[in-house]
Amino acid sequence: MPRLPRLVELTADSEGWGFFLCTSKELRTGRSGADFLTLTLQDVSAQVTAKILDDAGRFQAEFEAGEFVRVEGRASLYNGRIQLVVSSIRRVHPDQDRLEGFREDECVLSAPRPVDEMWAELTARVAAVADAHLRVLLTRILVDHEAQLREWPAAQVIHHAYRGGFLEHIVKMADVGATIARAYGANADLVLAGVILHDIGKLQELAYESGAISYTRDGNLLGHIALGLVLVHEAASGVSGFPLELRAHLEHLVLSHHGSREHGSPVEPKTIEAFILAAVDELDARINQVRRAVQEDAGEGEFTAWHKRLGRVLYKGSKNF
Amino acid sequence: MPRLPRLVELTADSEGWGFFLCTSKELRTGRSGADFLTLTLQDVSAQVTAKILDDAGRFQAEFEAGEFVRVEGRASLYNGRIQLVVSSIRRVHPDQDRLEGFREDECVLSAPRPVDEMWAELTARVAAVADAHLRVLLTRILVDHEAQLREWPAAQVIHHAYRGGFLEHIVKMADVGATIARAYGANADLVLAGVILHDIGKLQELAYESGAISYTRDGNLLGHIALGLVLVHEAASGVSGFPLELRAHLEHLVLSHHGSREHGSPVEPKTIEAFILAAVDELDARINQVRRAVQEDAGEGEFTAWHKRLGRVLYKGSKNF
Amino acid sequence: MPRLPRLVELTADSEGWGFFLCTSKELRTGRSGADFLTLTLQDVSAQVTAKILDDAGRFQAEFEAGEFVRVEGRASLYNGRIQLVVSSIRRVHPDQDRLEGFREDECVLSAPRPVDEMWAELTARVAAVADAHLRVLLTRILVDHEAQLREWPAAQVIHHAYRGGFLEHIVKMADVGATIARAYGANADLVLAGVILHDIGKLQELAYESGAISYTRDGNLLGHIALGLVLVHEAASGVSGFPLELRAHLEHLVLSHHGSREHGSPVEPKTIEAFILAAVDELDARINQVRRAVQEDAGEGEFTAWHKRLGRVLYKGSKNF
Amino acid sequence: MPRLPRLVELTADSEGWGFFLCTSKELRTGRSGADFLTLTLQDVSAQVTAKILDDAGRFQAEFEAGEFVRVEGRASLYNGRIQLVVSSIRRVHPDQDRLEGFREDECVLSAPRPVDEMWAELTARVAAVADAHLRVLLTRILVDHEAQLREWPAAQVIHHAYRGGFLEHIVKMADVGATIARAYGANADLVLAGVILHDIGKLQELAYESGAISYTRDGNLLGHIALGLVLVHEAASGVSGFPLELRAHLEHLVLSHHGSREHGSPVEPKTIEAFILAAVDELDARINQVRRAVQEDAGEGEFTAWHKRLGRVLYKGSKNF
Amino acid sequence: MPRLPRLVELTADSEGWGFFLCTSKELRTGRSGADFLTLTLQDVSAQVTAKILDDAGRFQAEFEAGEFVRVEGRASLYNGRIQLVVSSIRRVHPDQDRLEGFREDECVLSAPRPVDEMWAELTARVAAVADAHLRVLLTRILVDHEAQLREWPAAQVIHHAYRGGFLEHIVKMADVGATIARAYGANADLVLAGVILHDIGKLQELAYESGAISYTRDGNLLGHIALGLVLVHEAASGVSGFPLELRAHLEHLVLSHHGSREHGSPVEPKTIEAFILAAVDELDARINQVRRAVQEDAGEGEFTAWHKRLGRVLYKGSKNF
Amino acid sequence: MPRLPRLVELTADSEGWGFFLCTSKELRTGRSGADFLTLTLQDVSAQVTAKILDDAGRFQAEFEAGEFVRVEGRASLYNGRIQLVVSSIRRVHPDQDRLEGFREDECVLSAPRPVDEMWAELTARVAAVADAHLRVLLTRILVDHEAQLREWPAAQVIHHAYRGGFLEHIVKMADVGATIARAYGANADLVLAGVILHDIGKLQELAYESGAISYTRDGNLLGHIALGLVLVHEAASGVSGFPLELRAHLEHLVLSHHGSREHGSPVEPKTIEAFILAAVDELDARINQVRRAVQEDAGEGEFTAWHKRLGRVLYKGSKNF
Repeated sequence: MPRLPRLVELTADSEGWGFFLCTSKELRTGRSGADFLTLTLQDVSAQVTAKILDDAGRFQAEFEAGEFVRVEGRASLYNGRIQLVVSSIRRVHPDQDRLEGFREDECVLSAPRPVDEMWAELTARVAAVADAHLRVLLTRILVDHEAQLREWPAAQVIHHAYRGGFLEHIVKMADVGATIARAYGANADLVLAGVILHDIGKLQELAYESGAISYTRDGNLLGHIALGLVLVHEAASGVSGFPLELRAHLEHLVLSHHGSREHGSPVEPKTIEAFILAAVDELDARINQVRRAVQEDAGEGEFTAWHKRLGRVLYKGSKNF
Repeated sequence: MPRLPRLVELTADSEGWGFFLCTSKELRTGRSGADFLTLTLQDVSAQVTAKILDDAGRFQAEFEAGEFVRVEGRASLYNGRIQLVVSSIRRVHPDQDRLEGFREDECVLSAPRPVDEMWAELTARVAAVADAHLRVLLTRILVDHEAQLREWPAAQVIHHAYRGGFLEHIVKMADVGATIARAYGANADLVLAGVILHDIGKLQELAYESGAISYTRDGNLLGHIALGLVLVHEAASGVSGFPLELRAHLEHLVLSHHGSREHGSPVEPKTIEAFILAAVDELDARINQVRRAVQEDAGEGEFTAWHKRLGRVLYKGSKNF
Repeated sequence: MPRLPRLVELTADSEGWGFFLCTSKELRTGRSGADFLTLTLQDVSAQVTAKILDDAGRFQAEFEAGEFVRVEGRASLYNGRIQLVVSSIRRVHPDQDRLEGFREDECVLSAPRPVDEMWAELTARVAAVADAHLRVLLTRILVDHEAQLREWPAAQVIHHAYRGGFLEHIVKMADVGATIARAYGANADLVLAGVILHDIGKLQELAYESGAISYTRDGNLLGHIALGLVLVHEAASGVSGFPLELRAHLEHLVLSHHGSREHGSPVEPKTIEAFILAAVDELDARINQVRRAVQEDAGEGEFTAWHKRLGRVLYKGSKNF
Repeated sequence: MPRLPRLVELTADSEGWGFFLCTSKELRTGRSGADFLTLTLQDVSAQVTAKILDDAGRFQAEFEAGEFVRVEGRASLYNGRIQLVVSSIRRVHPDQDRLEGFREDECVLSAPRPVDEMWAELTARVAAVADAHLRVLLTRILVDHEAQLREWPAAQVIHHAYRGGFLEHIVKMADVGATIARAYGANADLVLAGVILHDIGKLQELAYESGAISYTRDGNLLGHIALGLVLVHEAASGVSGFPLELRAHLEHLVLSHHGSREHGSPVEPKTIEAFILAAVDELDARINQVRRAVQEDAGEGEFTAWHKRLGRVLYKGSKNF
Repeated sequence: MPRLPRLVELTADSEGWGFFLCTSKELRTGRSGADFLTLTLQDVSAQVTAKILDDAGRFQAEFEAGEFVRVEGRASLYNGRIQLVVSSIRRVHPDQDRLEGFREDECVLSAPRPVDEMWAELTARVAAVADAHLRVLLTRILVDHEAQLREWPAAQVIHHAYRGGFLEHIVKMADVGATIARAYGANADLVLAGVILHDIGKLQELAYESGAISYTRDGNLLGHIALGLVLVHEAASGVSGFPLELRAHLEHLVLSHHGSREHGSPVEPKTIEAFILAAVDELDARINQVRRAVQEDAGEGEFTAWHKRLGRVLYKGSKNF
Repeated sequence: MPRLPRLVELTADSEGWGFFLCTSKELRTGRSGADFLTLTLQDVSAQVTAKILDDAGRFQAEFEAGEFVRVEGRASLYNGRIQLVVSSIRRVHPDQDRLEGFREDECVLSAPRPVDEMWAELTARVAAVADAHLRVLLTRILVDHEAQLREWPAAQVIHHAYRGGFLEHIVKMADVGATIARAYGANADLVLAGVILHDIGKLQELAYESGAISYTRDGNLLGHIALGLVLVHEAASGVSGFPLELRAHLEHLVLSHHGSREHGSPVEPKTIEAFILAAVDELDARINQVRRAVQEDAGEGEFTAWHKRLGRVLYKGSKNF
């Protein structure tokens, strides 16, 4: 039995075995009364739905959601999407499976760019911030949350929903935000601060464990905008001599970054830096969605299937002339 | 020359003198090139627009917005509303004018119910809160902000926009909220806490001086929902052993009390107490608006003039059967 | 074979027999070509979906939707909700099954509070109405529709959708409405009248038979607001000397009780009583929805599953501190 | 002094005297303290704003809103619109002024087509209705309301706001509705009934006296859709043997004719006849607005000034090729 | 084995064979691991979903989407809709199957009225256009696109989605538009031009082959409004001496025919002809939707099932009195 | 009499003479019956409203809107904005006034950056386009429209409404668009093309003469999006061998650049380049609005007055820490 290709390269006739992270597991009773298991499996490149139709009861005890697993099965098409029909599954035994090529990193869906490289770029930007109070604040934020910032996804489902996605989102926004700030004579350090802080509340809004993302109590009751506000307020208050006006501007950036009340910002942008931040955040999220939709679309035409969240099809042929 | 009646009783043929608080003053150049002054005057009962058409330049130096003034003039109708045409004005000389009957309290637009009575009612409710942590928190809030809570209006223009309006709004909501909580088996202490805390951020959002209300920097950049959140977060963190779940619920009440994102709440009600708080707040504001519109309408018909903010006329004849 | 517990207490491993009301029955052809039956069953405490997978053709003839049935089967989880897989079913034979414990009342989903108690409370309120014309009108309405008012649900699916739900909705609104009217010096009798009359058109909009609710022709073509208007108009016109202004106010209450045009009210509230009625109706419906969602949620977390109609998850942990 | 031309032909240099209906009169105090009068005057062709700047106090006693007046004055441009500056005014003395050419009919803004002709067309349509019950109902409605139907405007300001406008609106809709019904095989008699009945509630919603239109108590509290519903319900119930299904359909037509909830219909069209009625009503109102805007625009360009209600400019040059 | 009835007359117990056009074919893997085929079949009267549950792999090679097929099978009810369970299928062999009664025309879903009759009516209207430039333009459009105009549907799914639907839509709109133009003294030739040109861009927006409709690249990227604009611009520019004002008006009709920006018109109607065109287009599409929903509804009640796109149920009983 | 300062530096006590462009002139009749003139005057730095209260009739004949004028007057405050009260005015006599310092360029409101510099930057970008077809197309567009592109404003009132504003808008967008395209690996040449072409239809939508901007017939009937589409279609078709796919993409960029249907785009962005273009256009317009509002605000506080179009106040203090 051959080894399965990376999930992003799975085709309808793939068959074999592989190592994956299982991020969800659900037992259901089928129409005929027989039980079956529905799973979500991921590797570094993509994520698929999988089903165990035979012996579901027995396999169910063999592993839990959140564990790495060794799977045997074959791919099949279901409503135009690839899924995996699993014939055998068990949890990974790290020591022994490492001999067969098991690597944790390769089983977790991840941002395409190396984390260390992105992290270096971000810390270099912060080191170059002119205003001392702001530089101290941002440095502390990065130091205090380094582990999470290097690991986390940017959202539960909508965009950058994979390991390192949070960092990828911030680093790209920092890059774009810097050039826009320069173009318009805006305060580039404030824009950078907005980029780093705008979603910082997500570290409390979401719980990210073993590749699975869920909402915390505070996340549901307060949301990342409010959580980020409190975090920034406390962090700024902890920097001695931090100017009140600067603190208010930072908090305004966090609060207004969704751009409008309808999208959950209790106040709307009132400074050029806030307008830039909201535009860059929106554009980065949109482009990530479009990219992913184009990559994941398996159809042959020039357009993707209907994208429900964006309410349109997307054009895949735009680089061909 | 007779003394003018209370402003609420002014009619189109009133003429005489009186003491008022001047809350705004603006010099304009009329079409003919002549300058004139536009003022806002108030006493305990109402507020009117006034104009100084002759000698505006001279009178302009006689007083400032925010001062108590002695005014001579006559009422007149302008587009269906009463205004005062001022023939003479000067700032009050407290010692001497007190002899003529000047009382500061009677020159500031105020809630109809005595402040001491409302304050006693509110502190009694807090003293009866069962949960010790919550009782301590609310007591501290009342103690720390007593001076403001007894004085402030509830908003700049929309509802309860007069001295003591904030307290009137809270006390009425506490009354209604308590009976609704009882009716639905909701946690009445949480509802009371929500009532007291939901607009607490307005104490930082607005500046209230000499009867005039304006937005602060923090008010414009952050808004009272975010300011209230931070205040509650810090106050709760200052009560030793304050349960995190309770703090999260209180913060949720503050954040969600506008009921929907469109109205500026970054999260929407997710508990019965939050639903009750949002409904009671909305209803109290609405009824205050309707009351005021019916009282201020000088027309003879059964209906008020068009109420722009509510987008309708209101029925004045509802008690007559 | 043991007797099944009440439906509200059903768990994934329940197995046994019981008496229920069947409110819907549908024959479908499965993917394999085999027929199966989908049912809705209810008892006094809850409602579940049930399926008959074997011998569907034979069982189909054994009962109709709208009949009481005796069922044997076992519970199972389907997409996180409990359903019943039925192995045997037949219609109830009242005389003989009564010996085994069959009680009609216990097979119909019902409001938690006893109907007689709620009815007594409501008639007492009407008896205390000060205005004679209004008291006569309300009394006649209660007399004329007593049977329906004691039995009916308040809506087809959204809230209070069970026997006695209509009365429960009215009685609770009357309670809350009375205290709010008192708090604001509104006309409490008008509010009570609005509470009793606002949904009276539902008695013609809906047909309620054997636990099943459906729309009538008039319900679809005219809706309960218009039907209620005509009913109130005719009832008031039948009370000799009924003041025209009072009739107009009552009709206004009925027409405006959804609060806005978008929600189906052709006119919007223009009196304090109308504002109170709309607020109380909305709040009562919301709280009933939230309660039911929290009760029916079988998950283990602090939050319910996504509530489609409310567009959010709900917090179940709010009483725990 | 020459006689003024018809108001529709007034130009910025017109000067002279004329007979008009005064539909509103308001005394204001100008900035200089002097009083002046603002009037609305109309004749059969148009309506203008007029002002009395000198001797306002004296002239004020000479006439009331709702009376016919004899006016001397000259036209002038104010913000691009013609207005009349009145130098002398008094109420008409019918006997004596008739000698000078005073005719009541020529002083009331009116539909362009003769009323008798429109009325004959409408009654002929009703006489041709096939279904006896419907024919009887419509005949009674016409008989009972003939005086009003021949006189009334169709709305207060938006469209057909002049004498005979109601009838003009109905007759045109009946014409267009009949051909559309035929084209789609819809029930033409139902469409005709909808046309005649859809706005019948306006006869109670509005008060129309001496050329002035205002809202009644019932109009404000209930609106013409609800008032029309009750009127149709009672009229149909008064025709012996009137089929319930037909009555429900007629009531549905009245209720749904605004097309959507946002526009004030508590139910939306559910039959082809209701879709046709709503479309024809909307189109007739729109075209009347566009026509009037094009006629009243005094500018020289190909486009009208900005039309606030329609939110656009309109093209005047569309017939020129 | 008998021949199946026309699809519009199919009932749950129909069984037999027939000729159809297959417009879509999809292979899926069922829950049990077995493959099955989902098809769409149509004849001149209607369209149904069909399934091949056994031997899907073998049958799959026997035909392609877009081909005529000979089918054996039996009807069955699935969620209240009729579907066909196919036991055998193969592509049509025209020569031989013609002997058994195969006729291409009878296998393609088509407008009820004969195409030749509609075409004659349309060309007669164009021949009667008074303005020579306009007549030449419209004649060329008809000549250039005759083949498509006689064949095409009007839309992919929403309305007139069958062979000849485009022409049916235009001819009906021309009829209704002409009478409305006459009623309002609008330019009837402009309205006719608008009717013929408004959707002409759909001939490039959609690809219609073998009964299946799909979007082209230009359709997705530009849409039929923009495509129609360019087509009209070029066609008018090709008629020597075509007046610029007339061309602008025609282009305005094409651009504004959806009535509002929300519905995709970049400019909104600014002439009476444009208002008429938008109203007639909307009404014709609506009535076609309502008709089809009423015809296709298999239920027994007076109302159709919920119509998702219109957001309501529809009344089927409106002709019965 | 001194010379007036540049308009941007005008204060409430400025008095003197100056040269300006008069862009609008309107004669009105004041309340007292006296005529007066309302003007708009501009120089290179700003634009003000001016009034002529005395001798309006005489001065009216001395100049026309669209001419350069010599003005004597003094500044005054009207509702918080500076206006000019003109005591004397006449048209400029170029030869003679040039001696006194009249320069046409200094009397037309203009972009801050020199036009030649912006033009050089833009043509350099076009010369660097890799794809030959695209480079030819863009070069032709620049050549054909050079005169207009160097002179025109970008809009009538909302943003960049001054000479050279169009070019300033394009050049800034090209700069920002290029860096964003690079950041996301989008096709930078397509983005540049979108930037240059997206508003090209404004050259036909607007008429720009003597500093005044108005809508053309085509502008009102078709709008700049449709006009731009046709222009691009024809220009691309004129480049031999221009790929159809590339043309479609360019047209898509023009059509979708407002981002959504509500904002007037008949199709919404479906490629990454289209998303970037819409975001950059929106951001550039917003920042220009914010900048202008902050610059023009004469108040002393940290915030501007209420900005009606943006629906908020703006923060002026953001650079101060």
